[in-house]
Amino acid sequence: MTTPNDPLVIFTPSGKRGRFAVGTPILTAARQLGVDLDSVCGGRGICSKCQIQPSYGEFSKHGVTVDDDALSEWNSVEERYKSKRGMIDGRRLGCQAQVQGDVVIDVPPESQVHKQVVRKRAEARDIVMDPSTKLFFVEVQQPDMHDPTGDLERLVKALREQWDLPHLEADLGVLASMQPILRKGEWKVTCAVHLGDDMFSPRIMHIWPGFYEGSIYGLAVDLGSTTIAGHLCDLQTGEVVASSGLMNPQIRFGEDLMSRVSYSMMNDSGAQEMTRAVRDGMNTLFTNIATEAGIDQSLIVDAVFVCNPVMHHLFLGIDPFELGQAPFALASSDSISLRALELGLNLHPAARVYLLPCIAGHVGADAAAVALSEAPDKSEDLVLVVDVGTNAEILLGNKDKVLACSSPTGPAFEGAQISSGQRAAPGAIERVEIDPVTKEPRFRVIGSDLWSDEDGFAESILSSGITGICGSGIIEMVAEMRIAGIVDGPGLIGSPAQVGTDRCFLDGRTHSYLVWDGTADGGPRITVTNRDIREIQMAKAALYSGARLLMDKFGVDTVDRIVLAGAFGAHISPKHAMVLGMIPDCILEKVTSAGNAAGTGARIALLNVASRREIEQTVKAIHKIETAIEPRFQEHFVNASAIPNSVEPFPILETHVTLPDVNFNTGGEGDSASGGGGRRRRRRG
Amino acid sequence: MTTPNDPLVIFTPSGKRGRFAVGTPILTAARQLGVDLDSVCGGRGICSKCQIQPSYGEFSKHGVTVDDDALSEWNSVEERYKSKRGMIDGRRLGCQAQVQGDVVIDVPPESQVHKQVVRKRAEARDIVMDPSTKLFFVEVQQPDMHDPTGDLERLVKALREQWDLPHLEADLGVLASMQPILRKGEWKVTCAVHLGDDMFSPRIMHIWPGFYEGSIYGLAVDLGSTTIAGHLCDLQTGEVVASSGLMNPQIRFGEDLMSRVSYSMMNDSGAQEMTRAVRDGMNTLFTNIATEAGIDQSLIVDAVFVCNPVMHHLFLGIDPFELGQAPFALASSDSISLRALELGLNLHPAARVYLLPCIAGHVGADAAAVALSEAPDKSEDLVLVVDVGTNAEILLGNKDKVLACSSPTGPAFEGAQISSGQRAAPGAIERVEIDPVTKEPRFRVIGSDLWSDEDGFAESILSSGITGICGSGIIEMVAEMRIAGIVDGPGLIGSPAQVGTDRCFLDGRTHSYLVWDGTADGGPRITVTNRDIREIQMAKAALYSGARLLMDKFGVDTVDRIVLAGAFGAHISPKHAMVLGMIPDCILEKVTSAGNAAGTGARIALLNVASRREIEQTVKAIHKIETAIEPRFQEHFVNASAIPNSVEPFPILETHVTLPDVNFNTGGEGDSASGGGGRRRRRRG
Repeated sequence: MTTPNDPLVIFTPSGKRGRFAVGTPILTAARQLGVDLDSVCGGRGICSKCQIQPSYGEFSKHGVTVDDDALSEWNSVEERYKSKRGMIDGRRLGCQAQVQGDVVIDVPPESQVHKQVVRKRAEARDIVMDPSTKLFFVEVQQPDMHDPTGDLERLVKALREQWDLPHLEADLGVLASMQPILRKGEWKVTCAVHLGDDMFSPRIMHIWPGFYEGSIYGLAVDLGSTTIAGHLCDLQTGEVVASSGLMNPQIRFGEDLMSRVSYSMMNDSGAQEMTRAVRDGMNTLFTNIATEAGIDQSLIVDAVFVCNPVMHHLFLGIDPFELGQAPFALASSDSISLRALELGLNLHPAARVYLLPCIAGHVGADAAAVALSEAPDKSEDLVLVVDVGTNAEILLGNKDKVLACSSPTGPAFEGAQISSGQRAAPGAIERVEIDPVTKEPRFRVIGSDLWSDEDGFAESILSSGITGICGSGIIEMVAEMRIAGIVDGPGLIGSPAQVGTDRCFLDGRTHSYLVWDGTADGGPRITVTNRDIREIQMAKAALYSGARLLMDKFGVDTVDRIVLAGAFGAHISPKHAMVLGMIPDCILEKVTSAGNAAGTGARIALLNVASRREIEQTVKAIHKIETAIEPRFQEHFVNASAIPNSVEPFPILETHVTLPDVNFNTGGEGDSASGGGGRRRRRRG
Repeated sequence: MTTPNDPLVIFTPSGKRGRFAVGTPILTAARQLGVDLDSVCGGRGICSKCQIQPSYGEFSKHGVTVDDDALSEWNSVEERYKSKRGMIDGRRLGCQAQVQGDVVIDVPPESQVHKQVVRKRAEARDIVMDPSTKLFFVEVQQPDMHDPTGDLERLVKALREQWDLPHLEADLGVLASMQPILRKGEWKVTCAVHLGDDMFSPRIMHIWPGFYEGSIYGLAVDLGSTTIAGHLCDLQTGEVVASSGLMNPQIRFGEDLMSRVSYSMMNDSGAQEMTRAVRDGMNTLFTNIATEAGIDQSLIVDAVFVCNPVMHHLFLGIDPFELGQAPFALASSDSISLRALELGLNLHPAARVYLLPCIAGHVGADAAAVALSEAPDKSEDLVLVVDVGTNAEILLGNKDKVLACSSPTGPAFEGAQISSGQRAAPGAIERVEIDPVTKEPRFRVIGSDLWSDEDGFAESILSSGITGICGSGIIEMVAEMRIAGIVDGPGLIGSPAQVGTDRCFLDGRTHSYLVWDGTADGGPRITVTNRDIREIQMAKAALYSGARLLMDKFGVDTVDRIVLAGAFGAHISPKHAMVLGMIPDCILEKVTSAGNAAGTGARIALLNVASRREIEQTVKAIHKIETAIEPRFQEHFVNASAIPNSVEPFPILETHVTLPDVNFNTGGEGDSASGGGGRRRRRRG
């Protein structure tokens, strides 16, 4: 019961305001007004999550003057907390500070339940914290022979009454451990509560005696064909506390997806072996990441996985047989909620697992995660999102419509199947420039900031050496070779005479280009062979023709912007990608990198459960294009085999670079560039 | 669209009627009217569940005349089914027979989805079939590259569209096995669908290719301290297809509940050992019962368990420590739904488990099951339900109010701790009469229909011999000894002189009574010692004082009827139980046996899911009485130690039997009858 004479409490940044009787704790006022002010202990002065910042003086904007004694005096609970843990000067505990007069209270971001996790890129949306599992401190009524309800039922009642939580179930593990914990905590406990989803009713996941000072964690995992990348997040703050990666142990069964599908077809228990391998790999990753973060692995209560459909099926223990042949039927396309135990994952025994929905038989939960992170469905302008990997996922759209497809680029962009290719690691050539006159290359290797023709370069690479060319390096290399007139449009490397340098040399029936000869120092001889050019041509043609197909379906010839995603996407030079004809012509500044967008999408789904429902809806609205049954895909592929393209114009690119009009075909070999179309089937998936 | 001229279809026994266009299948008409007519195949002429019985001729009651051609002609689908499987003459398949004219259609009980499972006892309610899991046959849309939903999503859609089922989830096992099954069945499959409960959303449990001809099964298990009894039920018909029992393997850790709680206190991993023992025992039972029924164990998709609180906790893996001391706090009192896998039970991998709620720390899910089976809360007259076992569960009430308590009778009624006691088995004395003049006994043993003084008795027991006295035998024995004046009210056996027979003999400091001397033939000498009398006095006093305490709380001195439950309850002679003072005075005809009411309650909960919600509500409304904190319990116990009782009158009993007014106390021993109160603590639980 408040009166017009009661003090006015104004909260910022929400602007919510109301009058409260003298003596009302700020936390109580905040709750009554629906202000987002955190608390785990429920106002008992234990958790310190409800820190607030009162402001004093005149606030003409709000029409109030805040006197120095607008709040009750600093008390012993606050003093104890501050001396023990520290607290920013001027801050108060919202549960201790009581209203005495008109006051303006700022709720700092870290005191908000739905705090924002700010992302580094300006165009990327922030993540609003709303995880599946939260901590709640409660006092539980003791058992009474006259009212013989179970301990669990009284705990559930306490959570309902003290936290407005719905009826909760408890996992068997909680039930088995609960009684001694309740007594050890003297009927005060902290509960980790999973707030429920489509699959599971809300339930108590874990109990600690008394007030639990620690946190609980979740994992966002990008399960790729080649690598598995995990991010361990604090479910209270959203912070990434550790990240770790691992080679996908399934690689021993086949480098690309199709060869793994084949392995499962050729071997009776092949699918089971691969399932076991990837789950074992996951557990290794989890141990590494928990060790790195210095936390107990069993504090991980939630995990979100994104992956392509074949990885998705093998991880779940589903034979990917059907994904290896038309009509590429997924066992399940919707999102999947499970217990981690069902997958044999060593997390908290009650931990939950969520897999994002798949878009189609070749467009997986990883593409859905990219869609969640990059939100093409919310874009005003037409955006092309390309997730570059062994398989490329491609999204094109704006707020009106989104199209998706996948394209089998193969592992060339990751440095595989390239004669001097290697994974991105110290010693790998990552940047290249070739002098158009002398045809001499200069380059930079990972681990050094110097170009190869700069002073001190040799010393700077002493420990790593120069070992090969990584994915982004090979893209720049081939593009620079094209700009310098070493490679022609159809993809032939010229002879020493045609090019005018003996860095070109006959290498079997075609020519190669010598980048670096380290043999004198016991190092490798790094060359680009014509076969390497062919591999890159096929990979980039697959990628481009997927994008172009989506543009056809959308009815456009240009896009407003391009987002390159994938761990490797971050390192691609937009100009060189465009010279290669890997992506459509676009204003260079409008080609940006989103880093590991699939991993970010997983993190969003981990930290904000509403986004799971959102992406489930988004995915249903995405138009799926199956490249395998689109005749124009083949046509685009053939055209895109040329560098940059035998048909499509690149007018914007032409304002930056002039490509020499050379042709090294002397008959018999020039046509083979388009012959790649026949081979790509092998890599399907 | 029907018109007033369309034929009228009248269904019996429901009386539902409506007009349908000529050519409408009877199954369609039934569905539109909401008539309960079964079908698994959805009207495809495969399952034959929709058999109906048309009637012809004049029906003045219904105001119609049914012509011979009121239904379409017998067709080839019906002919094929009848020749292959047989069908009662006159019956038709509801999905094949089409309306041609006015017709009266009887739906026989076996064609009803919610068929009644009739119980043998007149006063017991029938069970309406409504199991958790049902079979549905569906045709699934094939995958299409232009609409790349998963196979599961199309299966779920088919179940929704063809069966009006809600959105279904699928267990991982279904997901992993589904794709080849859909293709083997050529996109026609039969699904076992769990329709959902508080804990689990509706989900597909299993898939078979094509139409699955078999059934699915459920288990109703009564997990007692001494024995585990399981009933395997067909979830389509409700029929009990096999029953099997097993000694509870926990017996090696202690005969009664309290000794098992002690074992867990004294041994670090004691509770885990007992959990493992009972779960292993369950799996043995499941294997036995499936073998007996000749079914695959993995066809068991649901299981309901009833047990006392200590068994409940140990089965779930919860240390029963708290149940061994006041305030006897249950870990959980509500019902529990789990996956069988979580308990390590070898049933269908997705099988569900349901445990009925516990009523209080000493009144378990077994008492709840008795309440479900005997429904005191629906009784017009005041009924006392006594479930006799190592621990007695006692319910008293009517539709206004129900009270419950448990009482630690100990194992004497099961023949344990009795010098010549044994479990009910061939050779055990089960019926006794003692001549009040000669004091000579005659008896019957299990395995023979003859009394021991009848011709041919000796031959009839040649194979079994006479081996001991079972529970119901010892009750009759002590009661007959009291009637014959061999035992006095306080429970002393008289001397040979006092009784007038040398069947009474000095046996240490007290006297014993010789029932049978088989030593000449190498058999046992069967006697009743005064210590045996003491054990029975304590057991029956515990039982009576529990009942009497509930009567106090209810404010009554008499009850209208008594139901004796428990496997052993079926064999108790009401008159002898009343002579003993084990149950309150009551009209003998109003004392009936309910057999294993706890097991029946489990069966009801298995076959009718609505009854689970019902008993959960009922249990919440039951008033729990904790005998341990009721001072009057001790007083009742002392009074009830006498035979029949030192205070309470038994006026109805007196119209049947006159008990001799004898007293064999010659000083020093007579008081020990009431001394049992001190010892009963040991057996608590």
